Amino acid sequence: MAKGASLSGFPEWLPQERVVEQHVIDTLRSIFELHGFLGIETRAVEQGSSLLKKGETSKEIYLLSRLQDVGNENDTPIEDRLGLHFDLTVPLSRYVVENSGDVVFPFKRWQIQKVWRGERPQEGRFREFVQADIDVVGNGDLPSHYEVDVPLVMVEALEKLRELGLPKATVHANNRKLSEGFYRGIGLSDIEGVLREIDKLDKIGADEVARLLISECGATQEQAQACLELAELSAENGQQLREKFDDLCKAHGIDMNGDAYTLAQDGLETLAMIVDQAALIRPGAVIADLKIARGLDYYTGSVYETFLEGASSLGSVCSGGRYDNLATQGKKKYPGVGLSIGLSRLVAYMLHTVKANASRISPAAVLVAVWNENDRNISNDIARTLRARGIAADVAPTAAKLGKQIKYADKLGIPYVWIPSVTEENGETTPQEVKNIVTGEQLEADASTWVPADDFAQRTVILAHN
Amino acid sequence: MAKGASLSGFPEWLPQERVVEQHVIDTLRSIFELHGFLGIETRAVEQGSSLLKKGETSKEIYLLSRLQDVGNENDTPIEDRLGLHFDLTVPLSRYVVENSGDVVFPFKRWQIQKVWRGERPQEGRFREFVQADIDVVGNGDLPSHYEVDVPLVMVEALEKLRELGLPKATVHANNRKLSEGFYRGIGLSDIEGVLREIDKLDKIGADEVARLLISECGATQEQAQACLELAELSAENGQQLREKFDDLCKAHGIDMNGDAYTLAQDGLETLAMIVDQAALIRPGAVIADLKIARGLDYYTGSVYETFLEGASSLGSVCSGGRYDNLATQGKKKYPGVGLSIGLSRLVAYMLHTVKANASRISPAAVLVAVWNENDRNISNDIARTLRARGIAADVAPTAAKLGKQIKYADKLGIPYVWIPSVTEENGETTPQEVKNIVTGEQLEADASTWVPADDFAQRTVILAHN
Repeated sequence: MAKGASLSGFPEWLPQERVVEQHVIDTLRSIFELHGFLGIETRAVEQGSSLLKKGETSKEIYLLSRLQDVGNENDTPIEDRLGLHFDLTVPLSRYVVENSGDVVFPFKRWQIQKVWRGERPQEGRFREFVQADIDVVGNGDLPSHYEVDVPLVMVEALEKLRELGLPKATVHANNRKLSEGFYRGIGLSDIEGVLREIDKLDKIGADEVARLLISECGATQEQAQACLELAELSAENGQQLREKFDDLCKAHGIDMNGDAYTLAQDGLETLAMIVDQAALIRPGAVIADLKIARGLDYYTGSVYETFLEGASSLGSVCSGGRYDNLATQGKKKYPGVGLSIGLSRLVAYMLHTVKANASRISPAAVLVAVWNENDRNISNDIARTLRARGIAADVAPTAAKLGKQIKYADKLGIPYVWIPSVTEENGETTPQEVKNIVTGEQLEADASTWVPADDFAQRTVILAHN
Repeated sequence: MAKGASLSGFPEWLPQERVVEQHVIDTLRSIFELHGFLGIETRAVEQGSSLLKKGETSKEIYLLSRLQDVGNENDTPIEDRLGLHFDLTVPLSRYVVENSGDVVFPFKRWQIQKVWRGERPQEGRFREFVQADIDVVGNGDLPSHYEVDVPLVMVEALEKLRELGLPKATVHANNRKLSEGFYRGIGLSDIEGVLREIDKLDKIGADEVARLLISECGATQEQAQACLELAELSAENGQQLREKFDDLCKAHGIDMNGDAYTLAQDGLETLAMIVDQAALIRPGAVIADLKIARGLDYYTGSVYETFLEGASSLGSVCSGGRYDNLATQGKKKYPGVGLSIGLSRLVAYMLHTVKANASRISPAAVLVAVWNENDRNISNDIARTLRARGIAADVAPTAAKLGKQIKYADKLGIPYVWIPSVTEENGETTPQEVKNIVTGEQLEADASTWVPADDFAQRTVILAHN
């Protein structure tokens, strides 16, 4: 990370680190477009009323005020003020409703943008970061096959990043209806409360969660135990999931003819479909994991989190779910399903743990040397000829000694230095030459025909030798 | 623009419009990198103290406050609060100082990011927009050749956009030292005041500017007249510039041995160099235009504005200058020169005046039809085979009647519909076929070998027929 990053929670990258982030963004975009997703950007701000719809993250909003209005900013109710968006799902929902007459449904969109969370500075979490989202939003209804299509696109995207050393990703899926049905079946009613506590399982452990379920959600010891047993349930295929779930229902005396069980079954069958369908296409990429709860309260069905092998401390790198009630317009609903990659954290992991880095700092393949300032135009002409042929070229900043110019190229990782002709004291003119400062090879060359060797042509991302 | 754009000053594009913006961004990035500029992103926020350094735009800042701090936000002095950046130059200066040990000087960087201006909503100006900047920042000193190199890169970038119907761009250059020397030479001392009034020339006209020079800057009628005559001066080469300027100095009795004239000469020679050098490389691309003042007060030498032929109402699309004192660290200075394209306004012009548009809405070249939901995996397999070969493919959302699926492709501009095999009632299996829904041609095809025709392979940006 840029050393001086003077503001906690606001990461900035050095130019060579930014190459990695840009490469990740370009890779994700190309995968999303390969699958027919449309790119959009939404404005960074939303109305307070829109941001406050969701209870859970409302504490983390940054509100804006114009410098002119300082002192009077609170004359305007928060609902009417502007705030920075904290995710890309709430803005998408607003965008879809506003443009429902102009977009084609189901609306498949990708969006890679910064989001902001007004966290307390001392918590060491990012307060500004990039998210990479894909969502499919339907008009009125949304076929359930998107609940398996969308996570599989994300797996494919993360798989593509394994070329840059990222470990294997596995999507852990659950379904809110399944959880709710089970909780109701054992006699609990504060469903949101129970989900909120279960979401803390990885952070605070089972004992503490049980304590909270009892103290905060009115659960008995036995009910809390049942919730934890459900959270421990995982399965690699639908049949296994059905059997394990029914065993658990029986063990806790749930009425298999009751409404609660029916609700749970609805969620279970969607989850079973997802796991089985995903297994056909990419075995092992998606598993059922019933402890996945998700903090955001707009999810109504499938929920997903994604973990990287051997990187548990990183937590989920790609999360999401299905939301049926987020975007509405009168009686009309626009149900959606989507996942979001926490791109900044992923890039930080790639830079600092996996040690991905730019093969060179500058995009230029060639630095054209300058013999003296009066002849700068000769060097400019050479650079122009190279660029017209698609070869990125820089020109030396000053007509310093050649050694110093080569050092400048070296510091930027520019592999070639172009040495223009010069008329020597004896009146002879030297030929134009190009020197590969990595290999030391120096050859005569003509800017209208020369090409860099394949290994040195393009700046790429490489894994540093540890 | 997206129809519902519910918040004045915060433009959002429809997906097909975003294709144009993305294409402009990609084009600029490729030109900047061809010239060896390094891409960075800076955080969206800066400290109030940093944003308030510059007088002129300080009125237009958005300050942030955490929702938790509402009511107490003004306990913190504005200097210590966070605000959204209003340009990319102030953040660059901070970034360079913070990372001076880690970047290579001269630091050539490109940066394409959103900026925010807390304008009054009713003024109809953008309050959120994208800027595309290039700058070169030196450590201690900065060779003056960058003052011609940088505007020429921008001209090349804008020239590249002429393929999308953008009119020819001309950079109008001036130099603050030239103006200041002249104003001092005729006896004026409120240099910033005079520049501010001259900057209004295009908006309010010469008579009103003269009135303001007299009432606000203490000028006499004759001094005001001299300022207007200087502003009217333009030249296509250095010699013409020198002659016209000296004539004007003589006409107004400026002492050609005095300090003021020496200062003016310093600026004039830089400006003459810029115009003459630019003419060698790209005749007519850069002219001297002495009315260019620029509102921002951090410029210390060259200043630039760029106008498009026949689009005077658009104003300057690319502006900048040299700033010697913006980035400092103790006694150390990091002088820079840069230009900034107002990308959002340029894209708005391209969309609405030039009528550039996406050749199709979806990036997909093919929609794979689905005969029935149980056979969706057959269609998924075909799409997967196509994508593995780099052909963007979508799969029909539902197993509707084929005509409806074709209509979905048509609405998204997807040129091909892939029709999987199906076993008919007589037991015969139809061949796989692909239909070009634009030309109507339908042929047998194999997903592992088929390629779309060149004209239909990629989504591009085209000029709509008016």
